[in-house]
Amino acid sequence: RINGDRLWDSLMDMAKIGPGIAGGNNRQTLTDEDGEGRKLFKSWCDNAGLTMGVDKIGNMFATRPGTDPDALPVHIGSHLDTQPTGGKYDGVLGVLAGLEVVRTMNDLGIKTRHPIVVTNWTNEEGARFAPAMLASGVFAGVHSLDFAYDRKDPEGKQFGEELKRIGWQGDEEVGARKMHAYFEYHIEQGPILEAEDKQIGVVTHCQGLWWLEFTLTGREAHTGSTPMNLRVNAGLAMARIVEMVQGVAMENQPGAVGGVGQVFFSPNSRNVLPGKVVFTVDIRSPDQTKLDGMRARIEKEATAICEALGVGYSVEAVGHFDPVTFDPTLVSAVRKAAEDLGYSHMNLISGAGHDACWAAKVAPTTMIMCPCVGGLSHNEAEEISKEWASAGADVLLRAVVETAGI
Amino acid sequence: RINGDRLWDSLMDMAKIGPGIAGGNNRQTLTDEDGEGRKLFKSWCDNAGLTMGVDKIGNMFATRPGTDPDALPVHIGSHLDTQPTGGKYDGVLGVLAGLEVVRTMNDLGIKTRHPIVVTNWTNEEGARFAPAMLASGVFAGVHSLDFAYDRKDPEGKQFGEELKRIGWQGDEEVGARKMHAYFEYHIEQGPILEAEDKQIGVVTHCQGLWWLEFTLTGREAHTGSTPMNLRVNAGLAMARIVEMVQGVAMENQPGAVGGVGQVFFSPNSRNVLPGKVVFTVDIRSPDQTKLDGMRARIEKEATAICEALGVGYSVEAVGHFDPVTFDPTLVSAVRKAAEDLGYSHMNLISGAGHDACWAAKVAPTTMIMCPCVGGLSHNEAEEISKEWASAGADVLLRAVVETAGI
Ligand SMILES: NC(=O)NCCC(=O)O
Ligand SMILES: NC(=O)NCCC(=O)O
Repeated sequence: RINGDRLWDSLMDMAKIGPGIAGGNNRQTLTDEDGEGRKLFKSWCDNAGLTMGVDKIGNMFATRPGTDPDALPVHIGSHLDTQPTGGKYDGVLGVLAGLEVVRTMNDLGIKTRHPIVVTNWTNEEGARFAPAMLASGVFAGVHSLDFAYDRKDPEGKQFGEELKRIGWQGDEEVGARKMHAYFEYHIEQGPILEAEDKQIGVVTHCQGLWWLEFTLTGREAHTGSTPMNLRVNAGLAMARIVEMVQGVAMENQPGAVGGVGQVFFSPNSRNVLPGKVVFTVDIRSPDQTKLDGMRARIEKEATAICEALGVGYSVEAVGHFDPVTFDPTLVSAVRKAAEDLGYSHMNLISGAGHDACWAAKVAPTTMIMCPCVGGLSHNEAEEISKEWASAGADVLLRAVVETAGI
Repeated sequence: RINGDRLWDSLMDMAKIGPGIAGGNNRQTLTDEDGEGRKLFKSWCDNAGLTMGVDKIGNMFATRPGTDPDALPVHIGSHLDTQPTGGKYDGVLGVLAGLEVVRTMNDLGIKTRHPIVVTNWTNEEGARFAPAMLASGVFAGVHSLDFAYDRKDPEGKQFGEELKRIGWQGDEEVGARKMHAYFEYHIEQGPILEAEDKQIGVVTHCQGLWWLEFTLTGREAHTGSTPMNLRVNAGLAMARIVEMVQGVAMENQPGAVGGVGQVFFSPNSRNVLPGKVVFTVDIRSPDQTKLDGMRARIEKEATAICEALGVGYSVEAVGHFDPVTFDPTLVSAVRKAAEDLGYSHMNLISGAGHDACWAAKVAPTTMIMCPCVGGLSHNEAEEISKEWASAGADVLLRAVVETAGI
């Protein structure tokens, strides 16, 4: 078993970097705080005797050698970046549990045939630079490196420039490393494990996603002197689309979600009907047909809504991944580890996207989840217990040792 | 008649200060650009032999003496500040037409019994500091001076500090000046005059207004892993309120408008259900009962919408004025001037709020309007013709001379 106190202390130490305003964290990707977090992580890896490699997109790979020089490594990874008002565990738990697995192996003198690589993927959150899971996507060949470098944050700063600025652009070609297997341990970010009173989520699938960014063009006009029948009201069209997305998601229950988290009005003045409204619809389902059907339905209905109001309309898919089925052998290894350790467990479909979704394209992959209080995440109040954190890390250790071979 | 070319040249010269990005202006109140615009206006007033007075809230009063030392002045005024993406005429026309009236009187050697005061009111737009018509409101005793000084812009800068910073805080007590009459000439900002092919709007009333700022509190949560039935979705509540406001306005046709121009999502991240949504509803009607009825109805239905979604809810009235009936004698003087000059005219209710609405509380007041292309305003594409501008200024000159006495 891993050292739960040491894992917890590391979590709390990392949380000191980029503190939020309400007990959580604001350590967004490629900020100074991200740079500091990376430095702390590297110092821990150095102390654990790991060798650090960094690729051209800033992904960090800390290697513990295996006994077989020809064996590909088993990766354990997640991300250290957070949402602007994020929690202390989302992503961080997976990276630091990977480190804790290695520290425990060191303590117990466990040698594995395959090397172990603790991995920190750049820009998982996608809050600052869309899309999410950007660097694991480049690693898996889903995006080009130039596409990633060209992404801009809301202030217009470029991903490539910011990566250089914080000093974490490495030399390795992105995706050059081959993996024997990829494990990701993450908080559930949903309410199911807690409601079902289970310690371990054995993640069998991950839902697919579309992020649809709508740009609606209305006629900027005075709210007082523009009669109702002469308005070209992009804000009203936005409201109708938000309601429609809710309806489409509800019709696809169970097994689908849909909502809007980001809205920009322009010029955003109290007495000006907006000339432009930009907002992003987030829809997800583990069922590919359902997911694509929702997208088609939403685009069709949005067109009708905008046409009825005379509002101009364009839509761009700014994020996407297909539903993922994780590797059955690794899934079984996780389930068996939980059973052997006597932890209660259940199968789970990941509601959120994870770097594991892209890793699954290039290597056998699976995930382990632990509960989080009230299912709350992407919220500074995100919380887990030390016991929950430890149980999942125990399962991770056991499944990794099983897969890496002794 | 006034000199239409000179008026137009002054309009174009003023428009060079704080140019917008699409042919209009961004000369928001108490910015450096506002300071520059004031300086240019003062230099023109100096050249026309006027004496400038400035009060503690930055209102500018340029006086042409009358022949009767005891007679109160006739004010002609409007505002030089603009929306962030505003036009070249909204407000500016009224101030510079006032100046043109005085210049013409100088040219023709017209002496009036009552002094004439060309007036520039601070912060009419309310885009940077709500509410609109702030300084004329203080002048009329509707708001206290401290209330005005304490207003904050979206960056947190204070009105009082910004007024000092641009160097336009004067010594005069606000509201100390008494007015014999107040005239305001303004573009219609609506489509009626153009549609009816009339040169002059004889403004008999102004609609009343409520700005209702809603703050909705949801539960910040992950858009992917938070099931539909566990969401506390403040964005969805906002959408339903926007649609409801539209419905309430439509039920009150004719003679009412309602809409939303400003929306802030927090944290405004694509994969986070908003924890907070702040937005402002703008409702108006010339009918006091209708206006207050709409407000009551909207607050009641918003409560129901939020309760149904479990969303927290508060509302604050951040702007308000009652419907105004303008002074019948001045209204007749305007109508008669248009008739004498052979300009086509019609009665009009102002859709927008104006400094005249507050001036009406402390002096006989009326307004004159000219058409604008497509009824478009609060839009950089706002446009009028030189002929339209001149016709209204001619009417203004005639009605002012009639009122000020020769
Ligand atoms: N786990 C997580 O928050 N990933 C970000 C991408 C997503 O929105 O699912
Ligand atoms: N005329 C004008 O745009 N006034 C601002 C106040 C309002 O919204 O009516």
